[in-house]
Parts: sequence; structure tokens; C-alpha cells
Amino acid sequence: MTPALITELTRAVGAAHVLCAPEDLSGYERDWRKRWHGKALAVVRPGSTAEVAAVVRACAQAGVSLVPQGGNTGLVGGGVPDDQGRQVVLSLRRMAAVRALDADNLTITVEAGCVLQAVQDAAEARGLLFPLSLAAEGSCTIGGNLATNAGGTQVLRFGNARDLCLGLEVVTPEGEVWDGLSGLRKDNTGYDLRGLFIGSEGTLGVITAATLKLFPKPATTLTALAACPSLEAAVQLLSLARSRLDAGLTGFEVMNPFSLELVASHFPALPRPLPNAVWTVLLEQSGAQDEAEARAGLEGLLGAALDSGCVDDAVVAESIAQSRALWHVRESIPLAQAEEGLNIKHDISVPVSAIPRFVQQTDAALAHHLPGIRLVNFGHLGDGNLHYNVQAPVGTDAAEFLRTQEPRVNEIVYDNVQAFGGSISAEHGVGTLKLEELRHRKSPVALTLMRQIKSALDPLGLMNPGRVL
Amino acid sequence: MTPALITELTRAVGAAHVLCAPEDLSGYERDWRKRWHGKALAVVRPGSTAEVAAVVRACAQAGVSLVPQGGNTGLVGGGVPDDQGRQVVLSLRRMAAVRALDADNLTITVEAGCVLQAVQDAAEARGLLFPLSLAAEGSCTIGGNLATNAGGTQVLRFGNARDLCLGLEVVTPEGEVWDGLSGLRKDNTGYDLRGLFIGSEGTLGVITAATLKLFPKPATTLTALAACPSLEAAVQLLSLARSRLDAGLTGFEVMNPFSLELVASHFPALPRPLPNAVWTVLLEQSGAQDEAEARAGLEGLLGAALDSGCVDDAVVAESIAQSRALWHVRESIPLAQAEEGLNIKHDISVPVSAIPRFVQQTDAALAHHLPGIRLVNFGHLGDGNLHYNVQAPVGTDAAEFLRTQEPRVNEIVYDNVQAFGGSISAEHGVGTLKLEELRHRKSPVALTLMRQIKSALDPLGLMNPGRVL
Repeated sequence: MTPALITELTRAVGAAHVLCAPEDLSGYERDWRKRWHGKALAVVRPGSTAEVAAVVRACAQAGVSLVPQGGNTGLVGGGVPDDQGRQVVLSLRRMAAVRALDADNLTITVEAGCVLQAVQDAAEARGLLFPLSLAAEGSCTIGGNLATNAGGTQVLRFGNARDLCLGLEVVTPEGEVWDGLSGLRKDNTGYDLRGLFIGSEGTLGVITAATLKLFPKPATTLTALAACPSLEAAVQLLSLARSRLDAGLTGFEVMNPFSLELVASHFPALPRPLPNAVWTVLLEQSGAQDEAEARAGLEGLLGAALDSGCVDDAVVAESIAQSRALWHVRESIPLAQAEEGLNIKHDISVPVSAIPRFVQQTDAALAHHLPGIRLVNFGHLGDGNLHYNVQAPVGTDAAEFLRTQEPRVNEIVYDNVQAFGGSISAEHGVGTLKLEELRHRKSPVALTLMRQIKSALDPLGLMNPGRVL
Repeated sequence: MTPALITELTRAVGAAHVLCAPEDLSGYERDWRKRWHGKALAVVRPGSTAEVAAVVRACAQAGVSLVPQGGNTGLVGGGVPDDQGRQVVLSLRRMAAVRALDADNLTITVEAGCVLQAVQDAAEARGLLFPLSLAAEGSCTIGGNLATNAGGTQVLRFGNARDLCLGLEVVTPEGEVWDGLSGLRKDNTGYDLRGLFIGSEGTLGVITAATLKLFPKPATTLTALAACPSLEAAVQLLSLARSRLDAGLTGFEVMNPFSLELVASHFPALPRPLPNAVWTVLLEQSGAQDEAEARAGLEGLLGAALDSGCVDDAVVAESIAQSRALWHVRESIPLAQAEEGLNIKHDISVPVSAIPRFVQQTDAALAHHLPGIRLVNFGHLGDGNLHYNVQAPVGTDAAEFLRTQEPRVNEIVYDNVQAFGGSISAEHGVGTLKLEELRHRKSPVALTLMRQIKSALDPLGLMNPGRVL
């Protein structure tokens, strides 16, 4: 223990918000998937930016490192302490205020601990849209979304978290507060600090608040499902959809047959409108003036796609409930995977045009080296981002399969990603999980630049060490 | 002179591309507005990324600083050498190739010296759109656009240059090549180096190529002009237009009466459809399926705006030629200003919601301190970005007015910008022009972070020194 530091932290945030008892810490020491079990020196829960700054200064003084944590919903182990019991977890959960909403400027300013859904709700209450949307939105926090540059299902139209943020408030490793909460859409007075902190996973400073872009709430949203004879055809459908619907195309998800078989087998009550599809595409169109116009747009697109042969069959949702049901099928794939048993997840991207060849080559390589392997392949085709997941062969011990084969599976998948100029982490970040892989695969020049920046901003190396770099 | 360096540069790029004779240098030593006259040691014109890297290494070896230059169309003196005759100008103009266009991925990869219009044309030839658009597009280069994070007229829908770029190739201050030419829409494997180099005005490295986003070419584009009784009403019209047209709203420019009077007086052949407008708004809608739909959308919007009182009168262009003519009026304002005489330019932004109060207060302060001053106020209201320019009082010597009053005018304008949380450089950058102002007005914490990054990446301080920081 380090009593002097605990005293200092208590002075900074109050005794009620410095947790040291093992039973109070455990919820902060492990991730929700229970892949990482760490041990914290303490958990501090500051209630204001000034308190965060005081905590950072106290830790810097004591030479103790900090692990910022939001909703603890990450998938790469970036928000839990290591197992040495010497790190302080800095929970932002108490800083959950919506500080301001400026409807004419289409911006909202929120604190880092604000749950994503609360941001969406605050916008909705004013008839506006905050489009960031992902599975964990009921519990993840906007600070975590920004620290990891979260993606999700609306990236095609609205971009990643970085694209949705106009300004930040950050506590620097020196414990200074950078007030960059501009609501400006244009500001060329110096380096893009905002963009640099976003996606840096807490390794350069602590994001305490953000000013985010809002959008008019679309008048309608309509969903359709299309069966494509091949991935090439799905890419063709994407091009056609983009040229006909333009910014109205807000979702374009692809699912292979096995991913939908898993959903059908574990959640038999869910609909399966196109059971014979080779590849199933979910399309979402938003923003038309009324439902008739939206329907005409989607039906026109699908008619043209049927004519051109890139679609075999299609259904357009008849109601909002049906639209939701189609999305629900897509979102149930990870749950169905969990029901099926342990599996190996990937979060990769390649250029959209390379997706068909990437999948063909990687499927073939995996089938060759690991016969019987089952591929759950689905994701955001519109962003070139696939969750190319691997389920153990039928009848094998999944835990044993993971233990013995995960490195080989990853090597095959990532070798192919690299061959197609892709990314081994499209939207989940690096964290602890992909640290070694990144050192091995990222351009050495890029790694050098990143290290130079890290050393310059955090020379003591106390901000979430062992992550990203 | 430094003959050893000249020998080294000649070895790197060939004798034909190392210019040392005063008559060869002069075009590179001054900016097009003739505000800055520098003196170069030499101009080098590399033809490849490897040659750029060799030039950077040679200069680093010799301890000589480098000034990257593209089309030399900047407005802040960021691309011309200082007057010491010891800097090497690195012209990227020979690196003008379109390296690749990937229609399915909606990306184009171009070299830094590619003229913006050539990028637009290459996209257009494939039925696609590269939306970055600004007055200098016929001569500015994409490298310069990225180095300064250029804005322009399509930011409302498509964002600034940074938002339009997916990947970069950069020669670092150490003369290494970072190949970050990813065409990926999602890549969370580390810090946002792309965003950092964009807008850094050549102070962190030399951008040699970029992979840019393309978009489907909109089926139609239609323009309208509206007369608003006040700036508050213009902001109200903007909100209405965003909610009704959504992403279809691609332009929203505002012009005060004096700016249009100047155009009418210097270019009497141009149309002036709403001569009595208090504020004139130019709206552009793009992307509807056909012209009838576009017209119905714009007319519906303007009808609703007339009903709500935020618009007094409006005209919708009857043809593409008329749309162009309306834009031409808007684009003629800077030329009309030049005809009228020397003037003081600003490129400021504040939150859109603060624009009316900012203009009211700044107008009043200027009128109070400098009676007779004439305000040419126009710009991209949709981005909160005004070109709030100042013309000398009638009958005064404009040169004398500038010499004696420019500092006072700038102080009043920038004090008000700061009071409203705005930016003193919305889209033009810092360069030499706003260096002192930035030191004075930017947050000290932000300046410290910027200096830490600059020192880390360019410890010798040889990359475009004296700019930005």
C-alpha cells in the first residue's frame, strides 16, 4: 500500500470515493467478458474535472500509474488494471452530466461518464439525433467511446466517434486541464489535439468531457433484407445503394449463412425471411420526407438490383416493428455465438473492394489448416469491417480448441488482413489484447511516431501503461 | 551558400530540379497576394517520395530548414521562405500523379502535387464526386489542402479536408517514409497520425500522397436565394433547412447588403435577384433523384420559411446556368473587394447559434471605434464561418487606413471572437500571419501540448520553422 497517496486521493475526491477494500474493487478489476482479472491499488471516483486533475497530479507525484475506466464494456482489456496491485483505477462514472445542448449549433456537451444511451436520449428529447450506436450503448460511456474511437452500426453515414466529436476537455498527464470544448465546425488554429486524444485509449490523458455533433432526427427509417448470390454481388449492391440513396443509406450489414443458422438454432422465435440466401444483406435507409418516399426509394433500389442480378430475393420491412426485428436478428449473432460455445473473435477491416477476395482466401486457408472449423462471418460491409469469427469444429472441446489453435487462427486471419492492406482492429481498439500483434504488424515508422508522441506527452509513462504501445 | 548541401540535393533529385538562380527562385519566394517576399537558398523539385525523403535527410544533415510548397495559393504566408536566404523550398508540384482510383471502395490515391481540380476531374471521369471545393481549386494542390486542412463551400455536408482523407504518405523529419495510405474507413490500431499531420502546415513532416474519400455524384444540384430580415432569421432558416433537407443541404452561404452592393457596383452585369434583402442566403440542395424532386424539396422549404417569417422573399434557380450565376455572385465578393481597394480580411468562426450576437456586438464595437468603417460580411453560415472583412471608410486612403488601423481592427474582431468561444482561423490556417495572435490567444495548455509534439517529432526544428508555433 501507499498510504500517502491514499491520503492525497482522499483529499482530492473525498473518502467516500476512494475505494480500497477488495470487495469494493472487484467490479473494476475485471472486464465484463471476464477475460482479464487485474488487481488495483485503489479505485477513485472523481466528481468533477478539477478532481480528476487533482487525482492525476497526486498519482504523478507518487509515481503511480492510472487506468481510466468508463462503463467497462471494452473488448480488448484496455480499461482494467494489471495484476500487480499498484495501479489506480480512475472511474469517470460519476461525471455523467449533460452540460449543454445547443440546438441551433447542433451540438451537445456531455461529461465523460455519461452513458451513450443518455446522450442519445438527451438529443432525442429535443427532436435531434446523436447517431453513435452500438450493442453496449445501455452501459458504455461516451468517454470510453471516444477513448477507443468506437464504431458501430451508423458509421457508413455518420462516421466513427472521432468524426462525431467537435471538441474535448482533457486532463493532461501533468494534471493540467485542456479546455478544448469548442462547438466549432471549422478551427484551423494548430494541431488536431482532439483527434489525437480520441482513440488513444487513455494513454495520453484523461478525457473528461466532449462537445458532440447532433443531427436532425430523420423523418423515417426503413429496413430491408436482400439475398445476394456472392460477396462480389453484395459489394455491387453496396455501390448501387450508395449511388441511388446517397446519404440516405445509413446501414449496410452482411451476414453469412452460418451466422444466421446459429441465430435460428439458438433463438428459434426470431424471423428468418430469406432462409436460402448465400449472403444476407441488411440495408437501412433514413431521412426521406415520409414512409412512402422511403419505401419507393428502397423498392426502386432492390428492383434495379434484382434486374442486375446482384440480388436474388429481398423483403422490405412493413412496419417499424419489422424493421426492429430485422436488426434484432443481426444483433443476435454474437449472443448466438456465445450460446454455441467459446469462439475466437476478430474485428478486421480491409478496403471494401477487397472484401470478396479477402474472405475467399482466408476461408480457404483456415479450411486447409483447420478442417471442420466453422466461420461466423458478419459485419459492417459498408465500412469494410467484418467480425470474422471462428467457432470450433462440431464435437470438439471449444476451450481446448481455443487454447491450442487461437494463435494459429489469428496468424492466418491477420496475415491475410495485412496482405490486403487492412487493419487488425477496425473498431474495438488495441488495449491489452492486440498489443503484441500491433508491435509485430504495424509499420515501424508509425510505431516510432506513436512512441515519440507518447514520450513527449507522458514522459513518466503513468497514463494507462501497457496499452496501445 | 552551402555547396555541400547543393551537391547532395543534386544527387537526390537531379541538377534540373535544384534551382539556385535568383530568376528561377522568385516565383517560389513570394505568395500570390504578394504579402510575403522571402529569399530561398534553393528550390528542390523532387519527383518521387524517395526523392523527398533524400532531400529531407540531406537538409537534416546540413542543419538547413525546409519549407514545403504546393500551389502557393495560401493566404497566411505558410509556404514561402523567410528572408534569410538559408531555407530550402521543397516544391511538390512534380508529384502530381493519380496513383489509383478504387470505385467500389470509393477512394482515390493521389500525390501531394496533384491540383485539386485534377482530383475532382479524375473522380468525375468515373461518375464520382470529390467534394472539396474552394476558390483556388484550379491551382492549389491537394498536399497544400491537407497541410492546411482546407475548408471551402461544401463543408456543411462533407466536412473539411481532414474529414475527406482516409490515409496519408508522409516523409518524417528523420527522412523516413510513413506509408499510411490506407483506404480503410475504420482502423483503430493506434494514434491518429493522419489527423495530426493534416493541418500541421508542414511543421511535422511532408505529406507526399493521400487516399481520399469519394462520393456518388449527386443526381441533381439546385440553388436558391432567400432574403432574411435578420441574422437570427438566417440561423432559423438554417435549422429548418437542415431538418427538412438533411444531408441534401450542401451549401448555406450568407451575404450582407454591402458585400452585394460591392459586387453590383464593380460587376454590374451580374444578377441581383433580391436587391432589398437585409441578409441574403444562398442555399444549395444536392442529391435528389431528379430535378422535380429537388425543386419540390427547396420550394417546400422556402414556403415553410416564408410562413414562419424567417424569409421575406426567395428565388429558386430555373436552370443549371442560373444556379451557377448565383454562386458566381457569391464568389465575386472577394474580387469586388479587391476592386474597391485594400482591405482587412478575417476568417473567423463561432458556434452557429452565436453568430447573430457576435456580429451585432462586433459591428457596434467597430462602428464606435472607427466611424465610417465599411463591413463586408459574408461566408459559410452553415459552418459558423464568416469572412468578416473590413473596407476603409469612403474617401480615406486605404493603404494608410490599413497601416494605422489594422492592429486595432484585428484586436476588436478577435476579442469578440474569443468572447464567443470562436476561432481566429477557421479555414485558412496560421502560417506566418496569425502566429503572434495564436501565441497570445490560444489556450496555454493547448500550446504546450503542441510544442511537446513538435519537439518530439522534429527535435531539430527544421520543418517549416516559424509557422503555427
